[in-house]
Order: sequence, then structure tokens, then C-alpha cells
Amino acid sequence: MDGGDDALAQRLQAGAAQLEATLEALLPASTAPYATVIEAMRYASLDGGKRLRPFLVLESAALFDVPVERALRAGAAVEMVHCYSLVHDDLPAMDDSDLRRGRPTAHKRFDDAVAILAGDGLLTEAFAVLADPATHPSAEVRVGLVAALAQASGKDGMVGGQMIDISPERHGLDLQGIKTLQALKTGALIGFSCQAGAILGQASPEEHARLTGYAADLGLCFQIVDDLLDITSTAEDLGKPAGQDVEMGKATFVGMLGLEGARAEAQRLADSASQRLELFGPRAKTLRQLTRFVLERSS
Amino acid sequence: MDGGDDALAQRLQAGAAQLEATLEALLPASTAPYATVIEAMRYASLDGGKRLRPFLVLESAALFDVPVERALRAGAAVEMVHCYSLVHDDLPAMDDSDLRRGRPTAHKRFDDAVAILAGDGLLTEAFAVLADPATHPSAEVRVGLVAALAQASGKDGMVGGQMIDISPERHGLDLQGIKTLQALKTGALIGFSCQAGAILGQASPEEHARLTGYAADLGLCFQIVDDLLDITSTAEDLGKPAGQDVEMGKATFVGMLGLEGARAEAQRLADSASQRLELFGPRAKTLRQLTRFVLERSS
Repeated sequence: MDGGDDALAQRLQAGAAQLEATLEALLPASTAPYATVIEAMRYASLDGGKRLRPFLVLESAALFDVPVERALRAGAAVEMVHCYSLVHDDLPAMDDSDLRRGRPTAHKRFDDAVAILAGDGLLTEAFAVLADPATHPSAEVRVGLVAALAQASGKDGMVGGQMIDISPERHGLDLQGIKTLQALKTGALIGFSCQAGAILGQASPEEHARLTGYAADLGLCFQIVDDLLDITSTAEDLGKPAGQDVEMGKATFVGMLGLEGARAEAQRLADSASQRLELFGPRAKTLRQLTRFVLERSS
Repeated sequence: MDGGDDALAQRLQAGAAQLEATLEALLPASTAPYATVIEAMRYASLDGGKRLRPFLVLESAALFDVPVERALRAGAAVEMVHCYSLVHDDLPAMDDSDLRRGRPTAHKRFDDAVAILAGDGLLTEAFAVLADPATHPSAEVRVGLVAALAQASGKDGMVGGQMIDISPERHGLDLQGIKTLQALKTGALIGFSCQAGAILGQASPEEHARLTGYAADLGLCFQIVDDLLDITSTAEDLGKPAGQDVEMGKATFVGMLGLEGARAEAQRLADSASQRLELFGPRAKTLRQLTRFVLERSS
């Protein structure tokens, strides 16, 4: 790792710690008669993951000098949506996963009913957080965040992508098909994360477009690396079983492009993502470094 | 039925038809690769139910001369949330119901995974609809609707109520406990439905408070009548199995208060609800008539 990587690792770690504190404040433990669902929402969202999406919110917001406490709230909202999607995806009726980030999944730790409700609760809370005046004094900005998150995570976004992923047609997808799947299932929320900074910063249409392009390249790069890791990693590295996609016969980028082809495409996308940020000059240094982190990550 | 009841029945029917057309326009059939989840969202929300919640939005909005197309969008949003909650509640992991409104439940018609996603999609779409400028030109109003719906349907509202309903403690609840359960599980969304009209109409705090009180009385009355119907009706009347609560040993208002006591309490609440609307004069005639409809309904 060179100095840039060290600096990025420190920023990622600091951002994750701030995000953790924000989530903890937004989802305090409860003694209500329905405390179990809150415990499950906390279990599913606290102390886990790379917090990549909130980091994208923080760094895109920093381009426009958005106060960090506002960006953290938007970051917490997007992480709630990400975590809700993992809880529902892991259910026996969906991917039937027992392990997530090296821990039992929410339905294993609680039960299926509580996990379904915890997911519902996290999704709903994300919109509550965005709509709260603490997120931004302008109602226009807040409702803009709500609209963008709903678009990214709904039927024509993440939910649609998950529908494709569980459909019988999933196995026979061609390259364009798995690109569409990725753009919906993971790309849309990564896209929102970068948009969120621009919305909070009341950015120009050109700035919005640059960040949207960056997010699209980065999201696709992230997924290709995911497919590569599924083949080349161990379960211990990943915190979940490895080789699942191939075992289930799912079409993947590696299957389409080959190992070397997939690596080359991921590299191309990381370079393209970086270039899209030229408009922002040195302020976008961290977002540019992040493309290398996504490319070179091992879990 | 006297003339007032006839007029109310006609208004209910007309409101339900307008709501149906609004939902149809907001959730058109799709040929996307994820069309199945959209088909399931349509199955779960179109052509069903009394549309009581949207009717409350329409009638509360009419108190403030809100254009009907705005009220219909807010009504569609609240109905999407209501329908999502039914889809998730009916899942095998929750109430395991095969029948809803005389038709197979969503997970029987499709499967559990599609039903989970359809619920997620409906919940998300509700916020998309509210955040859209077509719902109201003022961002302050739109974000106010989002905040109120998220509060009513989230962990400290409907989700919390459902958590209590599936918890082991459910069977031993005392009267206050089942009142809390009702206030969260069904009361919060009924409350939002009346609040929505006041938010769209930028009503005074006093007007908000009156409508909130009306909704609380009406919602509790509705639940007590539900408990009465569970005992006195047939499955054919209800479109779902009758006698389920008693069979499952759940504490109910009828169990607490007795048949006659429950009937008297429902009557008292209907009267109280009506009285809370005096402030609005003859404009609130339909909302007052609605208390009798809720009291005297047979399904």
C-alpha cells in the first residue's frame, strides 16, 4: 500500500465509525413492548460491513462542502436500505443464507417473521430519517432525497433487480442481462449514494451527471470484482460461503468474460470512473482513490 | 338504510372507483424483465377491499378544498402501505393465511419470495408517490406527508404493532395492552389517513388535533367491530376464515369486555368520533356518517 491507500483506509475507517455512531443514535435500544423488532433492526445494521454506500455519500457531499452531520444522516438512510435488502435477501424464501459478515443472518439469530419485520422497519426508517428537518433545512432538498431513494430502491431499482435475481430466467442471462441485473440490484443504490451528496449540495446538472456516471462505472466494477472474489476467495475471507454463484449455475461476469477478461473490464471501469471526476479537481481525490480500493479489495 | 346511508354508500363506491383508477395509473402492467414483481404488486393492491383509508384521505382533504387528484395520490400511497402490510402479514412465517378478500393471498398466487418483494415494492412506491410534485406543488407539504407516513408505518407504528401481534406475549395482553396493539397496528395508519387531508390542506393545529382525535376513536371502534365480526360472522361474509382470534387464544376486546360491553364501547367511540368533528360543521357530514358505517358494517 502506498501513502494514498493508507490515507484512504484511514478515511474509510473514520467514516465507518461516524456512521456507526449515527446509526446508534437513530436506532437506540428500546424497552417498548415491540423492542424485539428494534433489536433485530440494530442487529442487522450496526457493527457490520464496509459502509461503502455511506462513504460515497460522505465523499460526494464533501465535494460541495455539505456539513458532515447532514451527510451522515443521508448515509445512515442508505445503509438502512442496504441492510434491509440483505435481511430480506437472506430469508429462506429467497437466498436462504445462514451467514452474513461472519455472523448468523437476522432470521437465524431471531426468526423469519422478526427478520421480515426488521427489514420493513429499516426501509421505513430510512425515509423517516431523510424527511426529518435535521437532514437538511430545505424541504426541497429533503423531498428530493426521498424521491431519489425511492426510485433507486423500488420496483424499477433494487427490488426489480432482486426479482430478476430470483427468477427462473436468471441462469440464462446474457451479458446485457447481467449488466441490467447489476444496474438494478446494486447499481441503483450506489448511484443514489453519489447523487445524495449532489442533492444535499444543491449541485449543478453537470455535477449531478458526472457523479451519476462515476457511480455507474464504480458499481459495475464492484460487481465484477464480487464475481471474481466468489471464485478466487475462501469463505473465511468473505464472511460468507464462497463459490455460490458458480455452484448455483448463475450467469456471472467471469463466466461471460473469463477471469482475465473480467479483470481487464474491472480495471477499465475503475479508470473510467476516475476520469469522470476530473471536473472536481483535487477535491475528488478520495473518490478517485476509492476506485482502486474497489478494484483491489479482497473481501 | 336511510338516505344518509345511501349517500354514504354511493360516496364510498365512487371514492373506491377513483382510487382504483389512480392505483392503475400509478402501477401500470409492465413488460420489464422484472414484470412478475409488478404483477404481484398489482395483484395485491388492485380490485380489493373497502378502501377505507383512502376514503378518509379524500374526505379529510375535502374539508380543506384540496383538489381531488392530490388527495387521490395520497390515498393511493396509504393504500399501498396497507396492502404491503397485508401481503407480509399473510406470509407463512407470519399469520400463514391462504385467503384474503375471497382470493388466494399473494404468496399463494405467486410464491413467498415474490410476495416479500411485492410488499417491499409497494412500501417503497408509496414514498415515491408522496414525494412526486404531482402530489402537491409545495415541497414542505410533500415531505410532511412522507414524514407522517413513515412515522405511522414504521417501528413505532404499524411495524411495532405487528411485532406485538406475533410475540409470545400477545396472548396474555390486558385491556391496555390490546389498546396499544390496536393503536400501533391499525390505528397509526388510520390516523395518518386523516392527517393526510390536513397536511395537504395546510390546516391549523386545532384542525389537525380534531382529525387526529376522530381517527383515534374511529380506528379503535373499527378494531372492536372487527373482533365482534370475528365471532359473529361466517367465513363467506368476511372473505377469510372466521373465529380465528378465539381459536388462536388471542386476547380480544370482546374477550375483555364481553359481547355487550364491546358493542357499547364501539357505540361510545363512534359517538365520540362524530362529536370531535363539530368544529368543521356540515362539511364533515360524510366523516360523521362514516362512524355509523364502521359501527354497523358486516364484513
